[in-house]
Formats: sequence, C-alpha cells, structure tokens
Amino acid sequence: MSAGRTAAHRHHDPGLRGFASDNYAGAHPEIIAAITLANGGHQAAYGEDAYTERLQSVVRRHFGPSAETFPVLNGTGANVVALQALTDRWGGVICAESAHINTDECGAPEKIGGIKLLSLPTADGKLTPELIDRHAFGWDDEHRVRPQAVSITQSTELGTVYTPGEILAISDHAHERGMTVHLDGARIANAAAFLGVPLSAFTSGVGVDIVSFGATKNGCLFGDAVVVLDPALRDAMRYLRKQSAQLASKTRFVSVQMEALLAGDLWLRGARQANAMARRLAEGARAVDGVDILHPVESNAVFARLPHAVARKLQRRYGFYFWDERAGQVRWMCAFDTTEDDVDAFVQAIKEEMSTSPG
Amino acid sequence: MSAGRTAAHRHHDPGLRGFASDNYAGAHPEIIAAITLANGGHQAAYGEDAYTERLQSVVRRHFGPSAETFPVLNGTGANVVALQALTDRWGGVICAESAHINTDECGAPEKIGGIKLLSLPTADGKLTPELIDRHAFGWDDEHRVRPQAVSITQSTELGTVYTPGEILAISDHAHERGMTVHLDGARIANAAAFLGVPLSAFTSGVGVDIVSFGATKNGCLFGDAVVVLDPALRDAMRYLRKQSAQLASKTRFVSVQMEALLAGDLWLRGARQANAMARRLAEGARAVDGVDILHPVESNAVFARLPHAVARKLQRRYGFYFWDERAGQVRWMCAFDTTEDDVDAFVQAIKEEMSTSPG
Amino acid sequence: MSAGRTAAHRHHDPGLRGFASDNYAGAHPEIIAAITLANGGHQAAYGEDAYTERLQSVVRRHFGPSAETFPVLNGTGANVVALQALTDRWGGVICAESAHINTDECGAPEKIGGIKLLSLPTADGKLTPELIDRHAFGWDDEHRVRPQAVSITQSTELGTVYTPGEILAISDHAHERGMTVHLDGARIANAAAFLGVPLSAFTSGVGVDIVSFGATKNGCLFGDAVVVLDPALRDAMRYLRKQSAQLASKTRFVSVQMEALLAGDLWLRGARQANAMARRLAEGARAVDGVDILHPVESNAVFARLPHAVARKLQRRYGFYFWDERAGQVRWMCAFDTTEDDVDAFVQAIKEEMSTSPG
Amino acid sequence: MSAGRTAAHRHHDPGLRGFASDNYAGAHPEIIAAITLANGGHQAAYGEDAYTERLQSVVRRHFGPSAETFPVLNGTGANVVALQALTDRWGGVICAESAHINTDECGAPEKIGGIKLLSLPTADGKLTPELIDRHAFGWDDEHRVRPQAVSITQSTELGTVYTPGEILAISDHAHERGMTVHLDGARIANAAAFLGVPLSAFTSGVGVDIVSFGATKNGCLFGDAVVVLDPALRDAMRYLRKQSAQLASKTRFVSVQMEALLAGDLWLRGARQANAMARRLAEGARAVDGVDILHPVESNAVFARLPHAVARKLQRRYGFYFWDERAGQVRWMCAFDTTEDDVDAFVQAIKEEMSTSPG
Repeated sequence: MSAGRTAAHRHHDPGLRGFASDNYAGAHPEIIAAITLANGGHQAAYGEDAYTERLQSVVRRHFGPSAETFPVLNGTGANVVALQALTDRWGGVICAESAHINTDECGAPEKIGGIKLLSLPTADGKLTPELIDRHAFGWDDEHRVRPQAVSITQSTELGTVYTPGEILAISDHAHERGMTVHLDGARIANAAAFLGVPLSAFTSGVGVDIVSFGATKNGCLFGDAVVVLDPALRDAMRYLRKQSAQLASKTRFVSVQMEALLAGDLWLRGARQANAMARRLAEGARAVDGVDILHPVESNAVFARLPHAVARKLQRRYGFYFWDERAGQVRWMCAFDTTEDDVDAFVQAIKEEMSTSPG
Repeated sequence: MSAGRTAAHRHHDPGLRGFASDNYAGAHPEIIAAITLANGGHQAAYGEDAYTERLQSVVRRHFGPSAETFPVLNGTGANVVALQALTDRWGGVICAESAHINTDECGAPEKIGGIKLLSLPTADGKLTPELIDRHAFGWDDEHRVRPQAVSITQSTELGTVYTPGEILAISDHAHERGMTVHLDGARIANAAAFLGVPLSAFTSGVGVDIVSFGATKNGCLFGDAVVVLDPALRDAMRYLRKQSAQLASKTRFVSVQMEALLAGDLWLRGARQANAMARRLAEGARAVDGVDILHPVESNAVFARLPHAVARKLQRRYGFYFWDERAGQVRWMCAFDTTEDDVDAFVQAIKEEMSTSPG
Repeated sequence: MSAGRTAAHRHHDPGLRGFASDNYAGAHPEIIAAITLANGGHQAAYGEDAYTERLQSVVRRHFGPSAETFPVLNGTGANVVALQALTDRWGGVICAESAHINTDECGAPEKIGGIKLLSLPTADGKLTPELIDRHAFGWDDEHRVRPQAVSITQSTELGTVYTPGEILAISDHAHERGMTVHLDGARIANAAAFLGVPLSAFTSGVGVDIVSFGATKNGCLFGDAVVVLDPALRDAMRYLRKQSAQLASKTRFVSVQMEALLAGDLWLRGARQANAMARRLAEGARAVDGVDILHPVESNAVFARLPHAVARKLQRRYGFYFWDERAGQVRWMCAFDTTEDDVDAFVQAIKEEMSTSPG
Repeated sequence: MSAGRTAAHRHHDPGLRGFASDNYAGAHPEIIAAITLANGGHQAAYGEDAYTERLQSVVRRHFGPSAETFPVLNGTGANVVALQALTDRWGGVICAESAHINTDECGAPEKIGGIKLLSLPTADGKLTPELIDRHAFGWDDEHRVRPQAVSITQSTELGTVYTPGEILAISDHAHERGMTVHLDGARIANAAAFLGVPLSAFTSGVGVDIVSFGATKNGCLFGDAVVVLDPALRDAMRYLRKQSAQLASKTRFVSVQMEALLAGDLWLRGARQANAMARRLAEGARAVDGVDILHPVESNAVFARLPHAVARKLQRRYGFYFWDERAGQVRWMCAFDTTEDDVDAFVQAIKEEMSTSPG
C-alpha cells in the first residue's frame, strides 16, 4: 500500500525482525486497510459508533450470544477494568506469581483499583484448584481482603496453555466458592491456535466470566477489549472503562481492527504462524549443544537456558530479553510476521555463538 | 488510498459530517500515511522505538529544548498522568468548574490519582489570579489538600482562548505561591491558530510547566502526549504513565502520528480550517432571528441559544449536543474536515427550522 | 476522681476553656467512668466484644430496630466508610460546598474512596432539593460520575439545623432519583437538642440511610460510629471499616463510651448546655456595638463579624478561629463544658476590646 | 479506682483472661490515670496540644534527638501512613509474606496508599538481605513498581525477634540500594524486653528510618504513633495522617497515654511480664506429651501444634486462635496482665484435655 503524503519519515528498516516480543511487530496490512475503510466522515465518539455496534455480533460468533464487548486502549487497561468489574472495593484477586497483572503492570491493579493480588508460585504459570485453595479462604474475615476472583492467563507468561478441562476445573472450583474467573487473553489467539478449538471452548464454554481479549499482540495497531459474558456487568464496565481512562474517543478505530481480526480468520492465521515459528525455533535451538528449552512450547514463546556470555553476544545480533538473568534464562518470542527464514537465521546465529564460546 | 483487503466492512457513509464533536471526525489521510510508513519490521515496544526518539526533537522545535514528550493513549490519560506528576499524594489542583477534568472524566483524577479538584465557577471557562486566590491558601493546613497545581484548558471548554499574557499572569501567580501550572491542550492547536502564535508563546514561553498535548481531536486516530518542561519529572512520568495504563505497547504508532502533525504544518492547517468553519457558522447563525451566539468564538466551538423545539428538530438532521438543555444552549463543533458546504447547509437548515417554528 | 499513679504529668490548666472548638474540650467524667468500668479482664478484640453487642440495642432505642452500629475511630473515618458503603467505584456524592467532607478532611473521600464530591454553594450550609438538582442528572452518562448519594450535615458547619421536614424533602427527592442519603452527624446531638425531638425524628424517621454518629464532640475521649439502617450494608461496612483503618482493636472502649452517652441522657445534657451557651454568647455579643451575628444560632456555634484588629486582640485572651479572615468573620464554639461564667467573661472581653478599638 | 457515675454497665467479668490476643486485654490502670490527668479544660485539637508537644521529648529519650512523633489512631493507620511517607506513588514495599500489612489489614496499604507489597515467604517471619534481593531489582524498569522501602516487623508475627545486627544488615542493604526501612513495632516493647536493650538499639541506632510504635497492645486504650527519624518527612506525615483519617481530634488523649508508657518503665514492665508468661507457658506446654512448640519463643506469642480435637476442646475453656487450622497450629498470646496463675491453669487444662484425648 502506498503510504501517501506525510510530513513524517521512516526511521527504521521494515525488513528487520527480532525475537524480543510480539509487541515489537507492527500491524498486519489488513488492519491498516480496515482502519482506512473506517476513516472519513463523522461517527459518534466514545463507542456509540456503527463499528462498535457491529463488533458486538462479530464477537458473539466467537464467545456466544450473551457476550458484550468493550473496546479499550491496551492490555493493562483491559485487565484493570475487568478486575474492578468483578470485585467489591474490598475484593482480592487470586493469580499466579508470574501473572502479567502481578509483575508487569507497575502495580496498576493496586493503584487504580485498590485491589490486592493474592499471588501464588507456580511451576509453569498455571493455577490449579489446589493452588487456589492456598488463598481461597476466610470468606467472612474482614481482616483480609475477600477473595472474589481468580485471574488466569491464556496462554501464560511462560508460554504454556491451559486445556479447556483445566479451565473448567478452575471455574467450577471458583464458582462453588462464590468467586468469578477472569482470563487475561493478551495471547488468547495463540492458545486457540495451539488447542485447535474455538475461542469459546476455553472461555464462555467452560465458565470464564470475563475476558481481556488481546488484539494488539495479535497484529493490531493498538487496542484490546474486555468481553463480558454477564449482561449485569454492563453498567460497571461502561463507567469503569471511562473512569480508568480506557475509553477511546474515536473508538470506531479500535472496533474496526477487531472486526478485521475476528470476522475472518486473520486472528488465527497470525497466531498459527507465530506458534509454528516458535516450535521451529525450539526444535532448532534444542538441537544445539548447551542450549536447554525450559517449558513446553505451546504458544509463541520459547524459554531457553544458555551460557550468559553467549546470550550477551547473541543479543548484539538479535533483539530478545533475559527472563531471569541470574539463572541464565532467556525468552524468545515469535510474532505473526516472523518467517521461517528469520528463525533459521537465528538458529544459525545461536549455533555460531555457541561454537565460538569458550564454554 | 486503496483500503486493501480486509475482513472488515464499511458501516458508515464517509461523506456525512455533523457538528457534534471534533471527536466524531476520523483521521487525516496524512496520519494514515504516517502509520503505514512506520509499519513493518520490528521496533522496540513501550516507547523505546526510533519514532518516539525522533519525536523528541520534533516537539522541541515547538516547545523549546527542555521539552520531553511522553506519548499516551488518550486525553483523560494525559491529564491524569500530568496531574499526578505535579502533586504529592495530598496535593489539590485548582481548575475551572467547566474544566474537562472536572466534568467529563468520570472522576478519573480523583479515582486514579486520589487528587481533589478545587473548582471555581467562571464566566467564560477561564481562570484568573483573582479566582485562583479563592482556593490558593492554607499552605500549611493539613485539614485541606495543599493547593499544588493550577490546571487551565486552552482552548477552553467554552471555546474561548487565553492570551499569552493571561497565562503568564496565572503562571507567575501560581509560581509565587509554590504551585505549578498544567495546560490541558486537548484543543491546543485551535488556540494557536486563533492567536497566530507558536505553541511556545502560550506554554513554555509563559511559565506553563506541563502540557497535555491533544493530537486526537487534531486529526489523529488515537493518542495524545504529555509534554514536560522540567527534566526532573522524567522518572515520575515514566512510572505514572505505565501505572495509569497509558503506555501503548506499540508506541511507535502514537509517535509517528505526532511527527506527522508537528513536523510540518498539518497540526495548524487542520486547526485553522476548524476555527474558520466555526466563525463562518457563528456568523451565519447569528444572522438568523431568534438565535443567540453565547461566547466569543475563538476556536472551533460555537455555543448558541435557540428555541428548544427548533434544536430538537435540527438534531434530526445534524448531529450536535445540548450544552445546557434546560437553558436552551447548544454546542456546535467544527473539525479539521468540516467544509464550507457543510457549514452553509447547516446554517440553511437552522434558518428553515427557525422559520417553520411556531416561535 | 483520683488520677491514680502514672508517669505522665499534667501539662495544662484544667480550669481554662475557650471558644475555639468543641474538640478542644476533654471528655465528660461519666465517659471516663464508663471506660474504667469496661476495663480489666479480656474481651474479644475488633468489635466482637460484649460492649459492642450491647451497644446495638442501646442505639436501636434511638434509631429504630433495623439500626446497626459500627464503632469507628474518628469522624473523618466515619464519613469515609459511610460514603464508600453507599457508592459504586464510579459514584459521586452531592454535598454542600461548606461540608466538612469537602473542606476539612484533606481530600480523604477522594483519596481513600476515590469518590468525587459534587459540591454546591449554599447560603446557610443547607442543601435543598433545588440545589441538589444542579448535580442530580446524567444517570446514564459515563462521562461523569453517577450521583449516588446526598450527604448533609446536621447540625451544619454554619451552626444551622435542618428541620425534619427539610430532611424528608431531601430524602424523598434523593430516593426518587435512586440516590441514598448520608447524614454527617458530627454534632447530631446539638441538632436534636435544638429541635427538641428524638434522634430518629430527623434520621431513620425521615429516610436517612446512613448516619455518621458523632460522639467525640459530644463529650467522648475518642471514637464515633456509623449507624446504618439497611442491614444489606453489613458486609460492606465491616470490610470498609477495617480496610479504611477505622477498626479499633479494643473496640469495647469505643462502644462503652457510646453506651454511656446514649443509655441515659448524657448525650442530650451536654448538647443542651453547649447550645444554651452559644445562644447566651450570641445574645451578649449581639448587644455589643460593631459586632454582627451572622447565621441563625441553632446549635453550639456562633458566627460573628467584628473588626479584624479587635478579633486579633481578643484571640490573645481567648482561643477561637477566624472563619473567613478576609471577611472579618470569626467562629465561636461552645462545648458541653462551657459555663455561664465562661460566656459572660468572654462577652465582657469582647466589650472591652471593642471599646478600646479605634473603630 | 472508683468508676464514678455512668449510664453504662459492666458486661463482662474483669477477672477472666485468655490467650487469644494481647488486644483482648484492657488498659493498664496507669493509662487510665494518665487520661484522667489530661482531662478537663480546653486543649488545642488535632495534635496542637501541650501533651503532644511534651511527648516529643519523651520519645526522643528513646529514639534519639531527631525523632519526631505523630500520634495516630491504630496500628493499621500507623503502617499505612508510614509506608505512604516512604514511597512515591509508584513505589513498592518489600515485606515478609506473614507481615501484618500483607495478611491482616484487609488490603489497606493497597487500597489507601495504592502501594504494591512485594512479599516473600520466610521460615520464621524474618527478612534477610538475601530474601530482599529476590524483589530488590529493576530500579529503572517502569513495568514494575520501584522497590522503595523494606518493612520488617519487630517482634514478628511468629513471635521471633530480630537482633540489632540483623536489622543493621537489612538497613545497610536497603540503603545501599536507595531504599528506606520501616519497622512495624506493634509489639516493639516485647522485642526490647527480650533483647534487653534500649529501643534505639534496634531502630534509630541501626538505620531504621520510620517506626510504627505500638502502644495499644502494650497496655493503652487506643492509639499508636509513627516515629520518624528524618525531619524532612514532617510535612508528608502531617498531611498523610490527616488524609488517611488517622488524626484524632482530641490527640492529647493519645499523647498522654504514650507519655505514661514511656516516661517511666511502664512500657517495659508490661512487655517483660507478657514475655515471661509466654516463656512459662511454652515451658509448661512443651512438657506435655503430644504438644510441640513451633518457633523460638522470643516475645509474648507461643505457637504450638497439638491434636485438632484437643485444641477444639481447649477453646471451650480458654480463648485462643488457630494459626493454621489445617496444620493443627495454634497461637497463644500473653498480655501485660497475664498472671502466673493464668498460665498455670491453662497448662493444667492442656494436660487435662490431652490426657482425655483418644489421641
């Protein structure tokens, strides 16, 4: 697509890709096309537009007829709004210690929502009913926050994926205790691609009450959404979204991106590609002596351990992050736009740096 | 520009425009072109990209060499982050009763920042040193919040514009009392266009400490920025932006829009057009018997009083809002894409509805 | 009563009293006696004690059978807990500009509760349905907080008292609009003494939903209470009280003070005395040339205007505060322990200072 | 002491004591005597009284000449005010998982202060530099809260006591990393009694920056204090105390209690008695077959494991709490008023219930 006239300049090489994060990727051209389509003329602001209205039915095809979708500005925003909608002022939220809400949102749930997170160490980023029970007690004890919601991440921050049955077990456990279930789906498409099931199979179909639907990592420019399955939450959602500074004035441009993702299979194509590239990378790297792959590679993330000096040298050639630098652990992420050539060249680079390492 | 392939569909008529809000307009094609330019390849997320780095120097050409720019997601976010950066936990912010932060942000400053707003009734949306003094006292009295900042809006919610001298008087007054000055510039371009001066002439040049720079209303898809003039605020800004859920993962797409606005004269062209259309509309409407224009038309807003029944009938033909329905006051906004034909047709509609009104 | 042995020393003259505040008074000896009675042995902490249980029935004699009492630590705490119990996270509270919650709590409702106060200027500290309507609108407009509660003060910060009929009109008005009513009764006993009616006559009997019951100003050492009339609020109250740091560990000592106040007529005796002394002071001062009494003297506060220099000289002899120093307004408060001699001597001092003033 | 006339009645047996909590005890008669002494006449409210002024020098004898004391209403309040004083809006606080701020304050630090707690599992309730390092990193990473303070409890929630050297190591470690140190001294007197050193030896003398000084558990009616060692915190403390609803109107009655505690040795006598009774109880219980004592008994708490059925039967005779019911762990607390007879009778009861247990 021709960029047209603009006073802005290109400041980067659009041919270069690394393994730092799926957030480092840009937007899919079909997303830009959708935005262009929705541009021009006047449309009501703050979510009263035709695109947001239309998005409702598109999302319902994935999450069921009671789903209502609230476009927001980013993932932290989606999580903070969703968790507030599920809790009283004195509610606590049970989550994994590794959860994004616990480690990567600068305390936004605590600061904006006043919500105490009841976090739990996990082996693989996944909660279980047994783990939940370590915080799920004291329902009438005002000296601690009342546990009111369980938040799980799908796929997890460690690249693992809950099966629908695992989520059902958590939902049943939570609901029996009067708690609700939030699913942080910043990478929900990658989970669906791995499981090979519709989105409903591990959300609305197995008792999840509210979903942070991640669109940005899945190839959008910006914007995510909260999908609620309980119509009683509508009022809370509208107010909390606005009050939490998550209501875009030109919401049509958030909604049309999600329509572009979800009306066809764009959401799934991108996630499948990212997942396939992660598997290819894991296989390639695993074959290199001295490199260990750390978790099951079930989505688009690969966690590996390799000598610190090697990792440092590799970072000069490709962008990626240490996950736990002291433990020599790194994270390699693939995105919707990662290619086989990208992966193969990176694996080659790993081999080269390992072979020249004094080890 | 061809929209390319997408699963999304057009759900509106791009030829229709109303007078409801400059937020109802879409984005300028040059903005879409800039986003397309910045797309592709990988760029560091969360503001560490080349576009955000480049934006710094672009903004400094407008606000001076000490300006540092923090792209955020929307205007409420810009205001909430800026006000927190200026206040201690116990600080209060003096503002006009009509200020957006006081009336249109669902209590976000209070909720996210815990900030008490000390609001003052004004005739025309503008604060003065004398008005400020009604709240600027009790510096050492812990029974009330300590007044630590003054927030003004430029152009104001009533469409009026502070002169540089008026802002200087406020800044001097505030600084002498140990307070800082925030300028909510959701429509800062319209003010500059009206005054015919550079942006610095009524911000950095006259003592404003921090600016919410409005880009969305000025023709962007989404995104605004906080511009700080005191480098000591850098740390606070970074943390507050993230914690307040205002840090876009793909910040390059916020920054490149602002580069497109500010590197050339796009920001000014759009604002001049909107202002000119507002003046044209005010003149046309003022000539209609029974229509009163209520405030000086100094930016892109026209406030009018006309018979309630007429306003209701007119709303069936053109989108616009009542400002104070009981007082029969309406607000008509022009945007960067409002045309002379749009205005003339609307004035004609006003005439028609007035003439058929029983009066 | 003998003070017994203690390492503490007396640092003040127990015979000196001024007109600064009813908070400057100590505790009634009957209150100390009650605390001594409740001392010794072990009693469950955090409100699970026999005194708190017993207090329930004592309070119900005053506020009706559905009243439930939650002792708290101070008046700001009572207000902050009560307002949170009445509002969603996005709720606003309508109050008078002069309300203690708006002017004298350092923004605690905003900071602790995230609650936006929708304040209104009043002539005499009293809201009316007409005034309330200036903020009571936009029930479904997420751009502003939803008005969910009206907070009135009885007696008001200006020493005036709502009649039961005035409060009924406010309650009916609020309830019809889906709002609830909070009564800040920091000086509720003074209001009852003035009106000559039971406490229920202007609270539970006329639709008030929740009361901040002021005990400290009424002669206690410390402690106030929230009295709720809707049993559904019980859970919220317990959690909010604890979370807002308002649950005393040794709650028995708060509760027994209130039992001492309310089981007999101690609450009323003190209030009658304070009110009578304020009337005596107003009458005496009004008779002095150059002194104006500003509001109806309906409780224990007297607001007066006198020459600034005279007020300053008078302050060297008796403690009291300027209310609005620029306007030459002062506030004189009487307490349960103010005597006729105190008042007469003070009036004499006013006369003396006025007569030696150059005028 | 004669109780004098009061409308309140005694609702408990002042001769009965249990082992549930030191909060179940009443106040020391010397404390009541001090309050009686400070009663009468008028004294400035909100901490401007002669007792609070006098308290400053009394506290400085214990904590050094730079100490400034801010009386507050309870322990949660002391902690919440202190932690806010030490942190920016985006600051995190490192603490033990078992810390009272983390488990027993209903999320008050998160709700009132917006503070994220970075908690760590410990063996015995005590942090170490090594443990702290698990959260003390990422100083410039806005994606997580900035670790700005370490909070330790002395004596800990598990009844253990830090040595001065252990605290010095923590302070040095924290200060080297730009963090400050808060000591939650809800039972600070018990720690001093155990260590046999002045209060300064493990606070001001070893780098602690701010102390929550616990007076209520030490024999007061109500009230605690924040003691700061950095005069620069004065302004923050005053505002935060008021805004957090922790400023008593009649502060003289908080201050005189602390004077009574600290001017002589009342604080130490009570703590020594409580500690001695805990040791006596531990020794007695340890001698009973089937009872395990779980932690070093270094203050006034005894943690034990005994058969669940026995614990249940014992609870019918004496008040105490399960600490971890599933693990069969109970907590027995002694107070300043616990006697040797109380302990011996309780040990006898343990023996009786154990012997009749089918076990």
